[in-house]
Amino acid sequence: MPRKRLTPVSFTNVQFDDVFWKPRVDTNRTSTLPIEHQQLKASGQLAQYRWKPGKPNPPHIFWDSDVAKWLEAAAYSLATHPDKKLEKQVDAVVNDMARIQGPDGYLNTHYLLVEPKKRWSNLRGCHELYCAGHLMEAAVAYAEATGKRKFLDMICRYTDYIRKEFGRGKGRRRGYPGHQEIELALVKLFRATGKGDYLDLAKFFIDERGRKPHYYDTEAVARGDKPGDWHFGGSYRYCQADRPVRELAEVTGHAVRAMYLYAGMADVAAHTGDKTLLAALRRLWKSTTQRRMHITGGIGPTSANEGFTFDYDLPNESAYLETCAAVALVFWAHRMLHLEKDGQYADVMELALYNGALAGISLDGKQFFYENPLAAYPGAPSGKREPGTHHRRVGWFGCSCCPPNIARLIASVAGYVCSADRNSIWVHLYAAGSAEVALGGQTVKLTQRTRYPWDGKVAITVRPEKAAEFTLALRIPGWCRKASLKINGKAVSLKPVTRKGYAHVKRLWKKGDRVELLLPMPVERVEAHPNVRQDAGKVALKRGPIVYCLEEADNFKDLHNVALSRSTKFAATFQPKLLGGVTVLTAKATQRDTAGWADDLYSADAGKLKPVAIKAIPYACWANRSPGEMLVWLNAR
Amino acid sequence: MPRKRLTPVSFTNVQFDDVFWKPRVDTNRTSTLPIEHQQLKASGQLAQYRWKPGKPNPPHIFWDSDVAKWLEAAAYSLATHPDKKLEKQVDAVVNDMARIQGPDGYLNTHYLLVEPKKRWSNLRGCHELYCAGHLMEAAVAYAEATGKRKFLDMICRYTDYIRKEFGRGKGRRRGYPGHQEIELALVKLFRATGKGDYLDLAKFFIDERGRKPHYYDTEAVARGDKPGDWHFGGSYRYCQADRPVRELAEVTGHAVRAMYLYAGMADVAAHTGDKTLLAALRRLWKSTTQRRMHITGGIGPTSANEGFTFDYDLPNESAYLETCAAVALVFWAHRMLHLEKDGQYADVMELALYNGALAGISLDGKQFFYENPLAAYPGAPSGKREPGTHHRRVGWFGCSCCPPNIARLIASVAGYVCSADRNSIWVHLYAAGSAEVALGGQTVKLTQRTRYPWDGKVAITVRPEKAAEFTLALRIPGWCRKASLKINGKAVSLKPVTRKGYAHVKRLWKKGDRVELLLPMPVERVEAHPNVRQDAGKVALKRGPIVYCLEEADNFKDLHNVALSRSTKFAATFQPKLLGGVTVLTAKATQRDTAGWADDLYSADAGKLKPVAIKAIPYACWANRSPGEMLVWLNAR
Repeated sequence: MPRKRLTPVSFTNVQFDDVFWKPRVDTNRTSTLPIEHQQLKASGQLAQYRWKPGKPNPPHIFWDSDVAKWLEAAAYSLATHPDKKLEKQVDAVVNDMARIQGPDGYLNTHYLLVEPKKRWSNLRGCHELYCAGHLMEAAVAYAEATGKRKFLDMICRYTDYIRKEFGRGKGRRRGYPGHQEIELALVKLFRATGKGDYLDLAKFFIDERGRKPHYYDTEAVARGDKPGDWHFGGSYRYCQADRPVRELAEVTGHAVRAMYLYAGMADVAAHTGDKTLLAALRRLWKSTTQRRMHITGGIGPTSANEGFTFDYDLPNESAYLETCAAVALVFWAHRMLHLEKDGQYADVMELALYNGALAGISLDGKQFFYENPLAAYPGAPSGKREPGTHHRRVGWFGCSCCPPNIARLIASVAGYVCSADRNSIWVHLYAAGSAEVALGGQTVKLTQRTRYPWDGKVAITVRPEKAAEFTLALRIPGWCRKASLKINGKAVSLKPVTRKGYAHVKRLWKKGDRVELLLPMPVERVEAHPNVRQDAGKVALKRGPIVYCLEEADNFKDLHNVALSRSTKFAATFQPKLLGGVTVLTAKATQRDTAGWADDLYSADAGKLKPVAIKAIPYACWANRSPGEMLVWLNAR
Repeated sequence: MPRKRLTPVSFTNVQFDDVFWKPRVDTNRTSTLPIEHQQLKASGQLAQYRWKPGKPNPPHIFWDSDVAKWLEAAAYSLATHPDKKLEKQVDAVVNDMARIQGPDGYLNTHYLLVEPKKRWSNLRGCHELYCAGHLMEAAVAYAEATGKRKFLDMICRYTDYIRKEFGRGKGRRRGYPGHQEIELALVKLFRATGKGDYLDLAKFFIDERGRKPHYYDTEAVARGDKPGDWHFGGSYRYCQADRPVRELAEVTGHAVRAMYLYAGMADVAAHTGDKTLLAALRRLWKSTTQRRMHITGGIGPTSANEGFTFDYDLPNESAYLETCAAVALVFWAHRMLHLEKDGQYADVMELALYNGALAGISLDGKQFFYENPLAAYPGAPSGKREPGTHHRRVGWFGCSCCPPNIARLIASVAGYVCSADRNSIWVHLYAAGSAEVALGGQTVKLTQRTRYPWDGKVAITVRPEKAAEFTLALRIPGWCRKASLKINGKAVSLKPVTRKGYAHVKRLWKKGDRVELLLPMPVERVEAHPNVRQDAGKVALKRGPIVYCLEEADNFKDLHNVALSRSTKFAATFQPKLLGGVTVLTAKATQRDTAGWADDLYSADAGKLKPVAIKAIPYACWANRSPGEMLVWLNAR
């Protein structure tokens, strides 16, 4: 019997009953999804299918994808919380799309209605295959949620047509997307339909990418443009097409494109067993997470290319760190975890999920960040995409990829909790709730009781239908230094059973067996690598998986004048009424004494410090109160 | 007898014989002026007067000014060091200009040759009056240097024509320049010719500026453009025309434009005694130097508008700080000093001169910085004007305003040393050498012996032709805390005679009287104002007027990991062979111990420090050796 691939337990089989995720998932369903539907309506994106030449507000090249991500999020919600109104809203969009779908199956609103003669003329710049990918993801989710086939059938027709257009055969295009996404979507479609053609197409796009002669040059000449390296950051590196993907040595260019590509590569590798793809992915993982990732799991530090710069360049106030990029890092990490069964991937997945990604949405689920800097100084003008959006979330963006992206992640986040392979149940995330896992011909129910991430005590009750020998692989987070484990009240030595970040407890599990995992969460003062010039002399505060920040609302102005000393002691306290219930860190630190400054801009008579009480909140929860400063990296003495 | 205005002693009456300025002035004459002539030739700027329609490389709207600043610098050099070859080069340009000058006197190469129908159509954007101003300054300097009238007469004809075109009378334009400069130039021309019309025109441009309806709107409509606020930084604030100049409350917009305007306002106020201008200048001085000036005297922190952002926004690595802006701050400070006889202006003048401005030119006088950041990290891509020019000086720029600007300043820097009014000689700068000062009907010769700025001991010998009672006003720099004074070996108490930064020693001066001024120069750890977020937790090193920096060439990579403690002791040592002879600062500091880092990007097991020897050099001398990192503000524990 072949070794069964490690597979996530579907979000439909996992229920949260916890202090952290349940409120987020509920808010996503009751607040975010309706709000986003309104915003898509207000922006004209829902009406795009009825647009006529000469009318204002023509469908933009990426509008299909914004709608598709909302459809996908709605589908996930419908899968666990049937809702007639929401289902009707989805069906309305599907019906509108059906009306404009071409007889050949083609389905891109912009190119059908606005530029009907330019189909496939600019893969590099025009998001056509990217939009197709998002439609595939939405269609699969909706079919799985409702059992209705119409949307999925439409998209399969579209994909079959794409399959005929692209490939190595005569008369086919040897192109690939400028904005990746379709690769991972095709693998989803393959899994949902079993059609190997879809997997082959994903593999084709990945294999063709970056080959010479560059397809982007070929298509540029064909449409009458100049060939050559592209303007955005001056390089094909912007869309990771400067060389064949197996030769990529470091993460470059647009962060979301990079992450979606790597996720797609991991998906293809999972099915093909291609070791050359895996080797590239391991290099790129190291480049991303050990050289170019902010402590929040945010990635892509500059607005110039919405992406990467160079190793260890991790600015704070000017950091871009698009919400979509953190979301996409979660996707990639999740896939790497399943490929490699290695906790290092789960660690990054958890980090990006609880910090960099969640920061992108307000606690009420109604407002969003595009950018997620690690310091905010409200007086500072933003040189970024949408002025004024860098220290306050807003309801929508001109380019509104992030809001539906975070919504689909939250709607399906229960799917990140655990996985199973042939004879093991893997628990990646700790959160009170329950999961039903199919294993060895029966259903094993796991129930977690924990206040994670505010407390590291996790009690898991294991309930197989009948006693059975299998392995419970419990994640021991990389941030935890002194984990301990009891089974049915009896201590189990972790060291002998722990490998690659998971404690593998193999035994005959009986209904009601109790697992007690203790993951102590001291407050840690974290330093950045010595090559990170922006964080030299500074520390960040972390507790468990949570990255903290100071916010003006809890403290005072000029947060940069706070200085921690080596002896600063932090107290961690759960405040049930603050920000929906969070654990805050408080300490007596020092602050520059500004009493004697008057009007001098520079002074040699300075250096005085005074004691000050500070309070830190989880980074992901900042900007939910009055506008003000925020700071993650604090000066340390 | 009316109180005589404080007037600078001409650079022609001051000779350096010192370790600091003499080499700079000599290099400027023997290296910079010839190099810049070559560069102006290579760029096509010297041939611009012979350009014909249809030919490549048409004269740019600001080319007249680049050439004019070089002419001005050449004239200053000729005044003290006659040089047939150089004089011939100047005459050749003057003759070329004469050939194209319009019959009405108009003299702008671009508008005469390239866009002959667009004269005066876009004062806001097209540098026409700015170029005229630089021609005036050059013409005055050349007439004074050589006694030749041709250039000056040409420019007076041009100015007389401008006078007829601009004004409040019928048929005249009520416009004013988008890039200020002509105001101060007109006052120079007034002083050289005695023609009150020129002073009136300067006053007109200043008085009209920022009035409503905006002239920039009027002219925009006239040329068929849209009226309204301008694109660059979105505001008339960019060129200080958002309101009448007397209502300006803070320094805004393009730094060089602001400084030239304020210098011109000070010039007009000096002649008109206009208290309302003076009140505005005091406000703007405070805004500039107490809110928006880097510790080097550099100003204008962002490349976005080549100018100012908001109070206390003083970035380091991304700081723009155009060389021209520091030069222009020297000009303004010099004028304020003469208006107000207050050492606070001399302090800033000295600071900008010895640091922010001088950094703009290499020690060999052949290469230039446009931008003068306070930190350099060579791997970092520059988002600025000319990529790669932010940590290495280059020979020339596409827009090459800075090289001739620093050249004209250095060529005439002896003119900043001392001044005289009715019965006092004022010494502002200390440098070995001599000055001949006309006072009370005789010439008083002062000889300074000092190793300033490397040593604070200054010996001045006073030699009037005949004994006379007058005041010697000696600057006690703001950075000096324990100055002391002896006259002919006898201690003089400074406190009773010192006001507004000058010690006023009134006595019967006899030939050979000896003044010994001691200005102790301990190494100081300077902090920035608590509102400056970019410098929080950091100190800069200063000794006397000199700001220091660490450079990779003397130290190591990753300078950001150096940390000074409160107990760090610095030794100051003169190194005659280093960088032309500079005093360096050395200390045993600490550095992060990077031994245990491996590949982790973040670690809570850090915090180790190790001792390290560091060496700091004068900021103005950085980037004269192998390319590398540079850092002014150092982490302090």
